[in-house]
Amino acid sequence: MRTTAAVAVEAGKPLEIMDVNLDGPREGEVLVEIKATGLCHTDDFTLSGADPEGLFPAILGHEGAGVVLEVGPGVKSLQPGDHVIPLYTPECRECDYCLNPKTNLCQSIRSTQGQGLMPDGTSRFSMLDGTPILHYMGCSTFSNHTVLPEIALAKVRKDAPFDKICYIGCGVTTGIGAVINTAKVEIGSTAIVFGLGGIGLNVIQGLRLAGADQIVGVDLNPGKIPMAEKFGMTHFVNPNDVEGDLVAHLVELTGGGGDYTFDATGNVGVMRTALEAAHKGWGESIVIGVAPAGAEISTRPFQLVTGRSWRGTAFGGARGRTDVPQIVDWYMDGKIEIDPMITHTLKLEDINKGFEMMHAGESIRSVVVY
Amino acid sequence: MRTTAAVAVEAGKPLEIMDVNLDGPREGEVLVEIKATGLCHTDDFTLSGADPEGLFPAILGHEGAGVVLEVGPGVKSLQPGDHVIPLYTPECRECDYCLNPKTNLCQSIRSTQGQGLMPDGTSRFSMLDGTPILHYMGCSTFSNHTVLPEIALAKVRKDAPFDKICYIGCGVTTGIGAVINTAKVEIGSTAIVFGLGGIGLNVIQGLRLAGADQIVGVDLNPGKIPMAEKFGMTHFVNPNDVEGDLVAHLVELTGGGGDYTFDATGNVGVMRTALEAAHKGWGESIVIGVAPAGAEISTRPFQLVTGRSWRGTAFGGARGRTDVPQIVDWYMDGKIEIDPMITHTLKLEDINKGFEMMHAGESIRSVVVY
Repeated sequence: MRTTAAVAVEAGKPLEIMDVNLDGPREGEVLVEIKATGLCHTDDFTLSGADPEGLFPAILGHEGAGVVLEVGPGVKSLQPGDHVIPLYTPECRECDYCLNPKTNLCQSIRSTQGQGLMPDGTSRFSMLDGTPILHYMGCSTFSNHTVLPEIALAKVRKDAPFDKICYIGCGVTTGIGAVINTAKVEIGSTAIVFGLGGIGLNVIQGLRLAGADQIVGVDLNPGKIPMAEKFGMTHFVNPNDVEGDLVAHLVELTGGGGDYTFDATGNVGVMRTALEAAHKGWGESIVIGVAPAGAEISTRPFQLVTGRSWRGTAFGGARGRTDVPQIVDWYMDGKIEIDPMITHTLKLEDINKGFEMMHAGESIRSVVVY
Repeated sequence: MRTTAAVAVEAGKPLEIMDVNLDGPREGEVLVEIKATGLCHTDDFTLSGADPEGLFPAILGHEGAGVVLEVGPGVKSLQPGDHVIPLYTPECRECDYCLNPKTNLCQSIRSTQGQGLMPDGTSRFSMLDGTPILHYMGCSTFSNHTVLPEIALAKVRKDAPFDKICYIGCGVTTGIGAVINTAKVEIGSTAIVFGLGGIGLNVIQGLRLAGADQIVGVDLNPGKIPMAEKFGMTHFVNPNDVEGDLVAHLVELTGGGGDYTFDATGNVGVMRTALEAAHKGWGESIVIGVAPAGAEISTRPFQLVTGRSWRGTAFGGARGRTDVPQIVDWYMDGKIEIDPMITHTLKLEDINKGFEMMHAGESIRSVVVY
C-alpha cells in the first residue's frame, strides 16, 4: 500500500512529507493506522545528527496512537479495529528480561530494532523509487500507516482520544513511571525534579499521584511555574536566583535533601546536582534525560558511600502491554492530566513547525493529528 | 587513670607508644579495656596524611573488642564485665536516621566524632604533659583503655575470643553487610568482587552465606586465589591476563554481567569497571572502598538508564548494636570464618610493623593483642 509520511532523509535536514510504499504485515506483525503522534526531544535528537546511532533515511516518531487495520499470521492478541499505542520498549513476556521482575527492558527484538528493521531483518517502508526507508525505535509514527510487531503494541480502550493518549506512548509513561515503577516513591516523600519540560511535568504529576509531601521543581525558566504548580509542584527554585551553592540550597529547602531526585534535563552537570541533592543515608537519584553522545556523569564516591543511590530509567520502567492500558485508564478516570501539556496540534505537513516550536521552547508537547 | 597507647603524633610519622592520661567516663559514657584491635587501611589512610579530615595528635584504631570497666551516669544498657565491640557508626535508636529503616548512618554524635571529641565536645585523652590527644572515629582502639559513648558499643557474648571478633568491628561487618544489608543479594545470584583483600574476602563469604551461585573474584595478585576460594570464590579473573576489554570479559563470563558487583579496592577506575560489569536491566554495583581525596567516579549515564544502579555502603549498612552481636553469633556457630584472615598477631609495641606488612601486602589482617 501507499501512505503519507514525514521522512528524515538525512541528518540535520527538515523532514520531507512524501508518499511512501508500505508492505503489509508479516508473521507476528500488525498494520496500524496512526491517528496521532507526539513530537519528542528524542526524535529531534536523532534528526539533528547528534545521535550516534541515528540511521537515514528513516521515518521517525515513537509517541503515537492508532487503530489496527490488519494482522499478520500468528497474531493472537490483536485484531482489526483494536485501538493501540506503539511501544518502543516491547514486552514479549518470554525473554530473560521480561521474566525478571526487576526490569522492563525486553530484549527480544532489540538488535533489529536498533538497525531500523523489523524482527525478520527487513524494512516495510520504501520510497516510491524503491529506496528502502528504515523504521525508527520500532515505531515510525510519523507515517500515517506503519507496521509493528505484535509485542510492540499496547491494546487500549476505544473511548480514549488518540490526540491525547498518544503522549502516553513516551512522555507521560516515562515521567510517571520513573516515580512509580523505578523510584517506587512512598507517600509522604520529599522530591526534587530538575527540568520542567514535558517529562518533568509528568514526573511531578507522578509524585502527586504517589502522595509526595514536598515536590520541588528546578528550572531556569520561571515561565514554567504556573503549569508545574497545576501538576503538583509545591516549591520552585530557579538556580539563577540562588546565591551560593545550589545543592546546599536544595538540601536546606528539603530538610536534608530529596528522598528522591529526578533529572529530566539530559544535562550531565544537572545529573550530578540531582545526585548530590539527594538525602544522605537514603536519597535516590533517577536519571531520565538522554545525555549528548560521549557526555559522562561524575561525582565523588563518598556521595554513594554515605547512602545515596544513582539509578536510571527507560520508558519509566513500564512494561508497555501491561502498564500502558492502565495509564490510559488513569487518564480517562481523571487521576492524571494530559490535555494542558498538549499545547499545539498540527497537521503532518506542518511537522517541521512543531520542531521549531520545540527549539524555541514555545511548546510543551506538539501533537500531529492525521 | 593512665594507660598505654600508640599515638599518632603527626601525619606521616610512625605511631609512638607512650603512657597517656585517660579521664573517666562522663554522662552516657563507658570506660572500656581494649583486649584486641585490628589494623585497618583506614587507620593507615589517616596516619599517612592523605585523609583531609585527619587530625593530630590522635589515638587511631577503630576495630577492637574489650571489656567494660566502668560506666558513667545514665548508662543503662551496659555494666562492668560486659564484653563489647566499639562502633565507629553508633546506633542511638532515636535520631531521624536511626528511625529510618533505609539507613544505618546514625547522626546523633557525628559532628563531635568528626572533630575527634566525645559528644560533650571534649577529649578524654591527654599526654602526660597535659597536651590533649584526640579520639579517632569515636573509638581509639590503639589505646589499652578508651572511653566511648554507650550508643557506640555493641554488647556481645562472653565466650567469643577478642582477638578474632575485633575484626567484626570493621572489616567483617563491612564486607558481609554490603552483601546482606546493602545489596540484599538473593539466593542464586551472580556476583563479581573487585579486590581480594580483607574486605573483599568478607564480601565473598557474605555472598556464600547469601547463596550466590557464581562468585567471581577480580584481583591483580593470583596469590590471593587459595584464600578467596576457601571463602567461596568460584571463578578468578586477573585483569592482566585478559586480552581486550575487561568489562566484556566479565559480562561474557557471567552470562550478561553480575547481578551484583562490589568494589573493595577504593580505586575509582575499578569502581567504573564494577558498575559497567553489572547486568543490564537490573545489575547493582556497590562501592565499599574509600577513594583518595578528590578522586571522582564517572560513567556514561546510559549505563544507568539501561538499568544499572550505583550505590555505596558504610559499615556494611549494619546497625552496630543490633547487627554486630548477631555476626559474632554467626562466627561462633561456624556460619562465617574469621581465623584464616587474621594472618598476624602483634603486641602493641610492634604496631608499626603491622602497618609495614600491610604496605608490603604480606598480611590480610594484623591484630594487636594487649
